[in-house]
Amino acid sequence: MKLTSDKIQELNQSKLSSHQEELNFLSNRLSKEGHDVESLIQKIKDFQIAVPSWALGAGGTRFGRFGIGGEPRTLEEKLEDIGLLKALTQKTDSVSLHIPWDIPSDVSGVKELATDLGIGFDAMNSNTFQDYGQAETYKLGSLGNAKKSIRDQAVAHNIEVIEIGEKLGSKGLTVWLADGSNFPGQSSLRNSLQWTQESLQAIYGKMPGDWKMLLEYKPYEPNFYHTIIPDWGTSSLLCKSVGDRAKVLVDLGHHLPNTNIEQIVATLMYQDMLAGFHFNDSKYGDDDLTTGSIKPYQLFLIFCELVSGAEDGAQAWESISWMIDASHNTKDPIEDLMQALEMIGVCFTKALLVDRKKLSACQIEGDVVGAQECLQAAFQCDVRPLVKEARIQNGGACDPISVYRELEIRKKLINTRGADSRSTGL
Amino acid sequence: MKLTSDKIQELNQSKLSSHQEELNFLSNRLSKEGHDVESLIQKIKDFQIAVPSWALGAGGTRFGRFGIGGEPRTLEEKLEDIGLLKALTQKTDSVSLHIPWDIPSDVSGVKELATDLGIGFDAMNSNTFQDYGQAETYKLGSLGNAKKSIRDQAVAHNIEVIEIGEKLGSKGLTVWLADGSNFPGQSSLRNSLQWTQESLQAIYGKMPGDWKMLLEYKPYEPNFYHTIIPDWGTSSLLCKSVGDRAKVLVDLGHHLPNTNIEQIVATLMYQDMLAGFHFNDSKYGDDDLTTGSIKPYQLFLIFCELVSGAEDGAQAWESISWMIDASHNTKDPIEDLMQALEMIGVCFTKALLVDRKKLSACQIEGDVVGAQECLQAAFQCDVRPLVKEARIQNGGACDPISVYRELEIRKKLINTRGADSRSTGL
Amino acid sequence: MKLTSDKIQELNQSKLSSHQEELNFLSNRLSKEGHDVESLIQKIKDFQIAVPSWALGAGGTRFGRFGIGGEPRTLEEKLEDIGLLKALTQKTDSVSLHIPWDIPSDVSGVKELATDLGIGFDAMNSNTFQDYGQAETYKLGSLGNAKKSIRDQAVAHNIEVIEIGEKLGSKGLTVWLADGSNFPGQSSLRNSLQWTQESLQAIYGKMPGDWKMLLEYKPYEPNFYHTIIPDWGTSSLLCKSVGDRAKVLVDLGHHLPNTNIEQIVATLMYQDMLAGFHFNDSKYGDDDLTTGSIKPYQLFLIFCELVSGAEDGAQAWESISWMIDASHNTKDPIEDLMQALEMIGVCFTKALLVDRKKLSACQIEGDVVGAQECLQAAFQCDVRPLVKEARIQNGGACDPISVYRELEIRKKLINTRGADSRSTGL
Amino acid sequence: MKLTSDKIQELNQSKLSSHQEELNFLSNRLSKEGHDVESLIQKIKDFQIAVPSWALGAGGTRFGRFGIGGEPRTLEEKLEDIGLLKALTQKTDSVSLHIPWDIPSDVSGVKELATDLGIGFDAMNSNTFQDYGQAETYKLGSLGNAKKSIRDQAVAHNIEVIEIGEKLGSKGLTVWLADGSNFPGQSSLRNSLQWTQESLQAIYGKMPGDWKMLLEYKPYEPNFYHTIIPDWGTSSLLCKSVGDRAKVLVDLGHHLPNTNIEQIVATLMYQDMLAGFHFNDSKYGDDDLTTGSIKPYQLFLIFCELVSGAEDGAQAWESISWMIDASHNTKDPIEDLMQALEMIGVCFTKALLVDRKKLSACQIEGDVVGAQECLQAAFQCDVRPLVKEARIQNGGACDPISVYRELEIRKKLINTRGADSRSTGL
Repeated sequence: MKLTSDKIQELNQSKLSSHQEELNFLSNRLSKEGHDVESLIQKIKDFQIAVPSWALGAGGTRFGRFGIGGEPRTLEEKLEDIGLLKALTQKTDSVSLHIPWDIPSDVSGVKELATDLGIGFDAMNSNTFQDYGQAETYKLGSLGNAKKSIRDQAVAHNIEVIEIGEKLGSKGLTVWLADGSNFPGQSSLRNSLQWTQESLQAIYGKMPGDWKMLLEYKPYEPNFYHTIIPDWGTSSLLCKSVGDRAKVLVDLGHHLPNTNIEQIVATLMYQDMLAGFHFNDSKYGDDDLTTGSIKPYQLFLIFCELVSGAEDGAQAWESISWMIDASHNTKDPIEDLMQALEMIGVCFTKALLVDRKKLSACQIEGDVVGAQECLQAAFQCDVRPLVKEARIQNGGACDPISVYRELEIRKKLINTRGADSRSTGL
Repeated sequence: MKLTSDKIQELNQSKLSSHQEELNFLSNRLSKEGHDVESLIQKIKDFQIAVPSWALGAGGTRFGRFGIGGEPRTLEEKLEDIGLLKALTQKTDSVSLHIPWDIPSDVSGVKELATDLGIGFDAMNSNTFQDYGQAETYKLGSLGNAKKSIRDQAVAHNIEVIEIGEKLGSKGLTVWLADGSNFPGQSSLRNSLQWTQESLQAIYGKMPGDWKMLLEYKPYEPNFYHTIIPDWGTSSLLCKSVGDRAKVLVDLGHHLPNTNIEQIVATLMYQDMLAGFHFNDSKYGDDDLTTGSIKPYQLFLIFCELVSGAEDGAQAWESISWMIDASHNTKDPIEDLMQALEMIGVCFTKALLVDRKKLSACQIEGDVVGAQECLQAAFQCDVRPLVKEARIQNGGACDPISVYRELEIRKKLINTRGADSRSTGL
Repeated sequence: MKLTSDKIQELNQSKLSSHQEELNFLSNRLSKEGHDVESLIQKIKDFQIAVPSWALGAGGTRFGRFGIGGEPRTLEEKLEDIGLLKALTQKTDSVSLHIPWDIPSDVSGVKELATDLGIGFDAMNSNTFQDYGQAETYKLGSLGNAKKSIRDQAVAHNIEVIEIGEKLGSKGLTVWLADGSNFPGQSSLRNSLQWTQESLQAIYGKMPGDWKMLLEYKPYEPNFYHTIIPDWGTSSLLCKSVGDRAKVLVDLGHHLPNTNIEQIVATLMYQDMLAGFHFNDSKYGDDDLTTGSIKPYQLFLIFCELVSGAEDGAQAWESISWMIDASHNTKDPIEDLMQALEMIGVCFTKALLVDRKKLSACQIEGDVVGAQECLQAAFQCDVRPLVKEARIQNGGACDPISVYRELEIRKKLINTRGADSRSTGL
Repeated sequence: MKLTSDKIQELNQSKLSSHQEELNFLSNRLSKEGHDVESLIQKIKDFQIAVPSWALGAGGTRFGRFGIGGEPRTLEEKLEDIGLLKALTQKTDSVSLHIPWDIPSDVSGVKELATDLGIGFDAMNSNTFQDYGQAETYKLGSLGNAKKSIRDQAVAHNIEVIEIGEKLGSKGLTVWLADGSNFPGQSSLRNSLQWTQESLQAIYGKMPGDWKMLLEYKPYEPNFYHTIIPDWGTSSLLCKSVGDRAKVLVDLGHHLPNTNIEQIVATLMYQDMLAGFHFNDSKYGDDDLTTGSIKPYQLFLIFCELVSGAEDGAQAWESISWMIDASHNTKDPIEDLMQALEMIGVCFTKALLVDRKKLSACQIEGDVVGAQECLQAAFQCDVRPLVKEARIQNGGACDPISVYRELEIRKKLINTRGADSRSTGL
């Protein structure tokens, strides 16, 4: 199914006047404080987040999975869902594909569909953490496996992913390497690091000159003693040995307890080494919850670093990739993604409101109390009218979730695809 | 396949003389230090650990699963595997069944087989964290679900599990409640606790008078914001409201980072509230690794509490249940279990060696250094000859893993059951 | 120095009109949504937080301490500072004393001064974690020490604290027990728990019938292997063995990484066992930072539990004690406390805005997305005008920190007390 | 006081025969397994660990400090204590000084005393985390302070430390930078990193050509929101920007919960970037407990990486510095250091026993079970006779702690120095 712009505009009508009132009051206040509200709204409009193809179905844990019904059965249906998401939120304009889950049988058909829906192709994702009929098993690793033939197979897979991506118009390869070990002694920590480095160099060598490599890190899971790329330091070390267009990807859930993630963002931008983001939230480990649902202040602080890093010229905003990467175990995936996109918009906007000149003065004068007041002044502000206005101006719905529910979209998807349809993914 | 005692004795022959030499030297030293070596060995012989029926197949993570081959396809084949494990290690004498995975089609046949293998039936496990065709989904919880009909269904399931267990001769019901929520607001924290309490009371009321209820706690996973029974305090609170025979089960992997688990053991024994143990090890979360493979000193300290708590009369040793609960993602499950049983034997034995009189004197005098010396004197001692001797006296193999490999048991299991056979479980 | 109400009113004048505009707009919106704004403001006005006497000086770490200048040198000067805080914020009306740091030399003088400043005496705090000339050292513990004479001394100290408190009009004794051990083996975990229980019973027996005992828990620091009361479960166990008026005190910084604190609050209220709160915030351990400065959403969720627990009748709001307990290492303590009081007001108010009827419906229907929307609707709302209005109605300053700075209060305190004056405390 | 070699030999007499028996039995077994026992003992003898000057007095926490009595009052008395430690253990041969705590008033006298005691001068430590009368306060940072004059002052202090070290014969500067912030917004994360980089470059430029810079990292404390050098990645980034002789120092307590420290060691050695170690142990944070007292298996695994990294030629053993850095809050510092030195000896020796050829084969074949058996075979071995033999051959005591107690050394130190003498340090 497809949502027309007209339909959305029609549904917006009844809500516009109260929105306008809220917006006017806020704009007025912000203007008095010296903000250029038009420019703020433009920045919010321009900020678009990719959605991964595997986020449209129900996720699960090792203890089980509960289907949502109406899950997309094909790549085409995944694009359709993202099309719906785009129509409603106007906050996503591209999809990140996963190979082998999303090998397109009809490349030009897929491209056409995507163009029709206004969806581009974000970074491609390779998969060497599962067996799907390939010659040798990845049980004990892939790019860093002790066995050369397995490493070669994993390198070849990544090159194939690049080739598929090239056909679709993607410009990046995301490598999340699940390799590691479950027990002390199982792997040589140094050797596996070296093999990984060599494998990444081989892949990078086959990457088109206008592509970038986004290298993730993760401290544990699915391996529980060590992972070969556990932290930003290791990812950075590997990227630097591989080439200029290899940079570090930050997934918000991939950190040890209490990690100061915003500092990692700052340190990466300091070196022009931030590839991009996987947005989600977590309380314990890689919980893959809706971004901003657990630690919204942390998300705000991360955006503060992103905004200031870009404004100060440490690293260009345009060089950073944005993607949601969450697992939808108990929520309707489309609704969950709408909540995530809203939260990203809200926290980004709050970060834009920080009075950076005043903050900088506090930092220089050692006014710790004043610095906190600066951040709180922005964080406490209710910016939802700005985010809504940006969405409306982009053609989206006043209230995306209400529309989704009013139109009974999930019910229609179930009717079309079945209650037991299951999307590929985790 | 079945391993005869004769075969094992035969394979032991070549290894006995060097073992005897090691044993004599150690026994001699320990006797000089005042230990009664015969009594020590008897205690090791008597200490038997249950194995869960779901531990015989390969485990997995939410990212995938790599089969091991030759996995038991039926309850009978699971018993067979435990029979092998028993023959080799003489450290396990019972199985813990999981319903619905292990519903016996032929109760008397299963009992006969178990008797033949010398295997008894440990606590029964219910499952309300997955959907397996029952009327209502457990997606949002079971015993603590907001919907009464779902709570009733989950209670009825537990009662059914008790009934199956009664037929087999089990004497306990283990309740691991996965209920919880993924997001703030999803559940009423107080209401879900109250519903859980009421459900447990209903189940307890149907439990035979000579049974005990073992109530687990776990801080997170598969729910990632809250679980209804996150810690020993909540489990204890529920048990006390339910009845005298409800006690707290400690799974070593079910704790927040840095938790002092041995203290929880001490606190539970102080109240005569320790139901038993699920042995495993972890570095990050509920990693379900081989017990003792990551933190052997912690395992030793836990046994120190168990031994001293029993000796001091805080809680009777016999009242505590012992089980391994690990996931075998990269190891042959049977080999992994042999390593776990060995590690348990080793740490238990070291705990028996602690000079408790001296330790107590150090504690009273405030001799912190002396207390540490006491523990290290026991921990540093190489007790493997004692553990081996106990195994040999019980009829087990000198070196169980070597025998298992020498006899190519996994190969034979694959030949019989197939390379793709898949055991029920996670 | 003392701030008159007239002075504050005078300084407020220039800010009232823009405040009124903000307040009107918000009140209008909230009224439309069904809120009784007058009643909301009344609740905010009524909510008062105690300040501990040790919070008025600079804090420090084991690596050192940097004085702030003008720190109160006497109990009287501490009261003066709280008087200032009260005049500015109208959010605190009592002080929590610490013995021996605050032994009053002139009880009636102190009472008179406090009355004059409108300050009452909150729970008394005993100190058995330091040596201050008493007969026997607390180096290896106090209420749970292996040596009976030390336990007796610590019990006697607590009784003395009660006696001082009685004279001043306090109605509670807060026990934070630092006892524990640094190394495995140093203490008998069970014995030290039992001795602690007996000591607490002895103290409780001497407590007036209208007093309550507030028993803290803390997992580590200043002991780094175990503490005798590490978690709410142990505190609760001890309280129940001691008497009805002993309840569990929650200090926000006293938890292991990733603990769900709001759930502990809910579980305690479920049992009518919540004594009260020590507000602060932390990223790593017991960091004692300004409450709400690191995890404001957590603070909001805690208030959601408090509000709903009281509204549902689980535990009466009036039965709960409120106190700030933070350490001011780099901020002016008075400014820091003003930030803390503001943040408490903001998060409390947001919790009052949660549409609990709608939330409850979402919980019952299993509408996880809707439940999150409910909480976010309240959390995203900018409630500062309500908090400010409550403060103004109570006679406080529009913007307390601005007034404090404008009047150069710290400078005046330094002039009076000296740049090197040092407050007792940590 | 000074312990003569003759006295120690005399006290050893009664213990040698039983030691010899234990040693012979073990040597015999190890020889059969292919180990060169003489070579093992030589390696143990050669492995010497520095002791910091601040480790001879009682440590404390922010909650207080309990003196031990007889603490060294001067640099000379600190050297004396290390002399005692050396005489007893023969496992330490150098001291690491801290400026300004240890500014020698008489350089040649100090050098003479040290030579006489057989003690050399390990890396020098600077202090920019406390105020000790210098012109500008380090309250808000030093090398990374927003104020240039403070950065310059801190750079100058480090250069002064180098100059003092040169006079004494030290060859390294250890920089532990406590700089950071307590609250979001307080510091510019990028600017403070850049200033730190510039300051370190300035210091490095003044370092003699045969010196190395050892740069520590630490995630938190005494700052509780961010520290400028929180992890090995940041330390490594700074070192690489500074010069070849700047390397990363690993303090075992300076990690977030669950960090795989042995992997960091491997990754640093992979790059020839490991400066050295600060040995201690911890359960929660930077607890500074006796190394090996909490997680002895982790210490063993770290030594496995160190031994294999050196044997494989990743980084030369000789290029790595070794030091104990613990805090002695409840133990006699000298006894505590003896326990630490013993534990280091034991874990190092166990690491030497790992059958690396077999382990490597297991790694290549993917024999996870076999790899674990390899490590356990070494870890379970009771190597204390080898460590003792190395000590005896070096002229140390059979049982250092017994001798220390028998000779009532602490009592004598108290008699000489007083019960209230207080050592400089934390």
